[in-house]
Amino acid sequence: MENYVHGYTEKEASRLVDQARTLTELLHYDTSYPAGSRILEAGCGIGAQTVILTKNSPEAQFHAIDVSQESINSAKSEISKQNIANVIFQKADIFDLPFAEEHFDHIFICFVLEHLPNPIDALIHLGRVLKTGGTITVIEGDHGSFYCHPQSKEAMMTVKCLIEIQAGLKGNSLIGRQLYPLLNKAGYKETRVSPRMVYVDSSKPDLVDGFSRKTFIAMVKGVKKQALSLNLIDDKIWDKGINDLYRATEDDGTFCYTFFKGTALKPE
Amino acid sequence: MENYVHGYTEKEASRLVDQARTLTELLHYDTSYPAGSRILEAGCGIGAQTVILTKNSPEAQFHAIDVSQESINSAKSEISKQNIANVIFQKADIFDLPFAEEHFDHIFICFVLEHLPNPIDALIHLGRVLKTGGTITVIEGDHGSFYCHPQSKEAMMTVKCLIEIQAGLKGNSLIGRQLYPLLNKAGYKETRVSPRMVYVDSSKPDLVDGFSRKTFIAMVKGVKKQALSLNLIDDKIWDKGINDLYRATEDDGTFCYTFFKGTALKPE
Repeated sequence: MENYVHGYTEKEASRLVDQARTLTELLHYDTSYPAGSRILEAGCGIGAQTVILTKNSPEAQFHAIDVSQESINSAKSEISKQNIANVIFQKADIFDLPFAEEHFDHIFICFVLEHLPNPIDALIHLGRVLKTGGTITVIEGDHGSFYCHPQSKEAMMTVKCLIEIQAGLKGNSLIGRQLYPLLNKAGYKETRVSPRMVYVDSSKPDLVDGFSRKTFIAMVKGVKKQALSLNLIDDKIWDKGINDLYRATEDDGTFCYTFFKGTALKPE
Repeated sequence: MENYVHGYTEKEASRLVDQARTLTELLHYDTSYPAGSRILEAGCGIGAQTVILTKNSPEAQFHAIDVSQESINSAKSEISKQNIANVIFQKADIFDLPFAEEHFDHIFICFVLEHLPNPIDALIHLGRVLKTGGTITVIEGDHGSFYCHPQSKEAMMTVKCLIEIQAGLKGNSLIGRQLYPLLNKAGYKETRVSPRMVYVDSSKPDLVDGFSRKTFIAMVKGVKKQALSLNLIDDKIWDKGINDLYRATEDDGTFCYTFFKGTALKPE
C-alpha cells in the first residue's frame, strides 16, 4: 500500500531522509521521552523518524516495528551507520502486535495512518500495548492543506491526482485535519492537536529545495504514471501542472503545506 | 469596496471586534513599538486593531487613518470608551497621504490590502511617509487557506463565492500567501512573512464560537445575497454549504484558516 509515497527505492529513501532532515525541528522539537521509558515506534519504515527520535531521547529505549522486512533492513543499516544503540527493530503488524498488554510507556506513529483503511482500529490496537496514562503521538500530513503562489488550476489538479490515488488505495491523505476526532473515537483522552505549517518563500532556500522541490513536488511527481494510466489527468495538463508547482518555488513564489501533530493519553 | 466584508453595520462592527478579540494573541503578540515612536495605522476602519495596537505600545504615538469618516467616528468612540489617549484619528486616503516624507517611524496595516486593486502601489505610497530603516507590518487573511473536517463540496462552494465576490470588487482574498512578493516588489527589504494558522477543534470552545462561527462562517454568510443575485450558486446548494460549515464546528469537527503577517524594512 505504501509503495508510491513511502517507497522502497533508493530515490524514495533519500527523499524520506531529506524530508525528515528539513522538517525535523518543525515536527519533532517537542517530542522527547524520559530516561528508561519504553517507546514503541509503529511503522518505522526505513527509519527516517527513528534516527531523530532516538537522538532526541538518548536514554529512552525504542522498539521500532514495520510490516516490511526490507524497510527494517534499511532502517537497521542507517541506525548502525549512525552508532545509535537505543533501538531494537522487529518485523510486526500493528493489527497483530507481538507485545503484552500495557508493555509500552509511550507510542509514536508518523506518516502511517494515512495509508490505512481503518486508522481508528490501528489506534485501538496500539492502545492495548500502551500503559494507562501513557501517551500516543501521531504525526500526519494533509495534502488538502497545500496551496501556493502563483497557483494554477493545473498545479492543483496534479495534487488532486495524488489525493485520489491514495484514496483509491484505501488511504486518506487528508488525515492531518482529522487527528482530533480519530484519537477521540479510538478512546484516547486529553487529545491535543497542533498544526505544523510549512510556509516557504525564497528567504528560506533550504526549505525551497528540501521541502517544496525535493519533498512535496517529488511526491506529486511520483504518481505521474498511475495518474495517467488511470486517466485522472491528461499528460499535457500534468506537465503544465508540475511546471507550475516549480514556478511557485521561484524567487517571488510561496508554498504552503501543513502537518498535524496529535498527542493523547490512554485513560483509566 | 469594503462594504461586504468590513462593513459599517452594527452587526458587522461587532463581528470585527469579536474577531480582533479572539485572534489578538495570534496576530498581535509580537507587535509592540518603542516609547516615543510615531506609528501610522493605515486603514484603521472601526478601530478593531487600533485598540490592541495602542494598548500593546502605550508609550508610542499612533496616527490612525481611514477613508471613511463614519468608520473613524466609530473608532474614536470605541477608543474614548476605553480611555486610550495615544492615538489621533484622521480621514485620509492611502493614495494621497497628508504627511511629510519620512514622517513615521513605523507603519501598520491590517486587513486593508485585500480590498485594493493595486496593493503594491499602496505599499509604495506608504513607503514615502516611512523613515529609512523603519518597518512596515502587514497582516492579511487568505480565504483559499480554509479547509475543514468534515468537508463538503457545497461548503467549499460557499467559500468560493466569497473569494469570487471579492475578486469581482477588484480585491484579492488570496493575498495572505502573496505578502512576501508584494512587499519585495514595493521596494522593501528584509521581508519576513510568518503564517498564523488558526486551527480549531472542540477542545477550544472560544475559537469554535469566536472564530469558526462568528468570524469565518459569519463572513461567508454575509455574501449570500450577492452570491445568489450574481448566480454564482444555487440557493439549495448555498444552504447545504452553510449547514456543512456549521457541521465542522461540532464536537468531532475541525476548522483551519491561515492569516499571514509580514514585516519589512524601508531600505537606504
